[in-house]
Amino acid sequence: MINVQFAARPERWATQEAPLRAAFAQAGLNADLRPDHDPADVDYVVYAPNSDLQDFTPYTRCKAVLSLWAGVEKIVGNQTLTMPLCRMVDPGLTAGMVEWVTGHVLRYHLDIDNTIHTQDRWEPKVPPLAEERPVTVLGLGALGQACAQMLATLGFPVTGWSRSEKSIDGITCHHGEAGLRTALTGAEIVVLLLPDTPATENTLNDETLALLPKGARLINPGRGPLIDDNALLAALNSGQVGHATLDVFRVEPLPLDHPYWAHPNVTVTPHIAAETRAITAARVIAENIRRGEAGEPLLHLVDRSLGY
Amino acid sequence: MINVQFAARPERWATQEAPLRAAFAQAGLNADLRPDHDPADVDYVVYAPNSDLQDFTPYTRCKAVLSLWAGVEKIVGNQTLTMPLCRMVDPGLTAGMVEWVTGHVLRYHLDIDNTIHTQDRWEPKVPPLAEERPVTVLGLGALGQACAQMLATLGFPVTGWSRSEKSIDGITCHHGEAGLRTALTGAEIVVLLLPDTPATENTLNDETLALLPKGARLINPGRGPLIDDNALLAALNSGQVGHATLDVFRVEPLPLDHPYWAHPNVTVTPHIAAETRAITAARVIAENIRRGEAGEPLLHLVDRSLGY
Repeated sequence: MINVQFAARPERWATQEAPLRAAFAQAGLNADLRPDHDPADVDYVVYAPNSDLQDFTPYTRCKAVLSLWAGVEKIVGNQTLTMPLCRMVDPGLTAGMVEWVTGHVLRYHLDIDNTIHTQDRWEPKVPPLAEERPVTVLGLGALGQACAQMLATLGFPVTGWSRSEKSIDGITCHHGEAGLRTALTGAEIVVLLLPDTPATENTLNDETLALLPKGARLINPGRGPLIDDNALLAALNSGQVGHATLDVFRVEPLPLDHPYWAHPNVTVTPHIAAETRAITAARVIAENIRRGEAGEPLLHLVDRSLGY
Repeated sequence: MINVQFAARPERWATQEAPLRAAFAQAGLNADLRPDHDPADVDYVVYAPNSDLQDFTPYTRCKAVLSLWAGVEKIVGNQTLTMPLCRMVDPGLTAGMVEWVTGHVLRYHLDIDNTIHTQDRWEPKVPPLAEERPVTVLGLGALGQACAQMLATLGFPVTGWSRSEKSIDGITCHHGEAGLRTALTGAEIVVLLLPDTPATENTLNDETLALLPKGARLINPGRGPLIDDNALLAALNSGQVGHATLDVFRVEPLPLDHPYWAHPNVTVTPHIAAETRAITAARVIAENIRRGEAGEPLLHLVDRSLGY
């Protein structure tokens, strides 16, 4: 019997329990899944970083902590978490992110906001083709790569940037500090999908926002701290940035007095761009437990030195 | 010397002349391109159906009329047009249509209109995945097929319908009268890309709109007469159709007193979904003249009996 503790808020248990049981059965795992195991008996923890569980010291025989979230910045620095930690890379989450990013890039590309608002005027204005609209994706992890490739499939010339060197078919890849300058220069639409680490904080700031062509548009479904909020507000007010669609923030829910809410050139969405989907996520958790039990390498293992 | 007459409005000549000359040079054609040839000397007519030229009787040695438009319904019944007639199938036009259709399907799928309008409320509501959102494309010509395939690439379960039987990888295809009923049943988003023929007029009417699930949404970048306007307005008012994005109309520009303009659940766009792009269209024209001169079959030849 494999003891699996579910450590997440009760509403998550309500939606995730049945899919996990189904996925365990499918994978042939004889697992005892509960939210209330004795810590000393637990083999695996299925974990949401906003769970009450923050002290992993009593989990003496735990073989791995399997996060339900893609972003693990809230726990990667937890000194008591000494066992392997795996991120969620959920195919459903990736699909949802690709749909959301592609939808908002096309919204900007086709000027859909004005299409919706400009009623009773027949003024044909044909947008350029995607092939004439440079898009840059910052971050080339699983999510950034999937979004970049879908945008390239639609015909956009896509430039990607990551901290370390990468090579992806159909994407012009840059890396490192100098590469960031190249990637932002000329980008009419920028998508932020970097992990939240000390090295990526304020990636978009006064200096880097100034590299964009005037009126460039931003989409941030990544993490709030990637953007220096004061720099972005200044760039929006000067017209250097034409519009920003922001799904993530330093503080969530975004406080009601935050200037983003009222800004005419900002769309706030409530952290919906990527949601772990219970069924597909359960399959990933089950596969990692199967691997753990079989002594095979775990999927999506977090590198603590990098923070993701 | 090949005499090519350009028969379209002057503003079209302004944008199309240089690309045509470049494409002819590229194809090695020794062509005399002018808007004002003596009809009896003309080998090919490059033609926009809204041109003043409507009597082709004097064009006694003309080998083909090459349309700059994809839709040829305005001239296919012209009794004086006895020479071969070719439609435009412009890769730039197809790309533009795919971008427009994909953008508006994702706009509906992600509920972007409400995303833009719903400010100062943090109410996470995650849309279903594309794989849970059935989309139906009516019309599987070059444009319908390209759109259907891009939507399938994004994960939507795509059903296609055409008058005659077709088979397309990744698309559930139906045809004929009974097939139309099947294709509309359960379709949450419907895209109209049928040609405008007597057989396709009022494809969406009281009876067929009633087959859709309540609140279904429509996108018409095809042709105005495909929809019975009174039936659509009734369906919008009853909530049977949740929203319609209409780019084409029986009368264009859409008259200012038409109820579509003011309807809260209709987005009117001014026939911009697909525009022939001068550079890519010129290459298609040049290739057809090259073929005509070489005695090879012409591309995109219109079948008069079908009307497209």
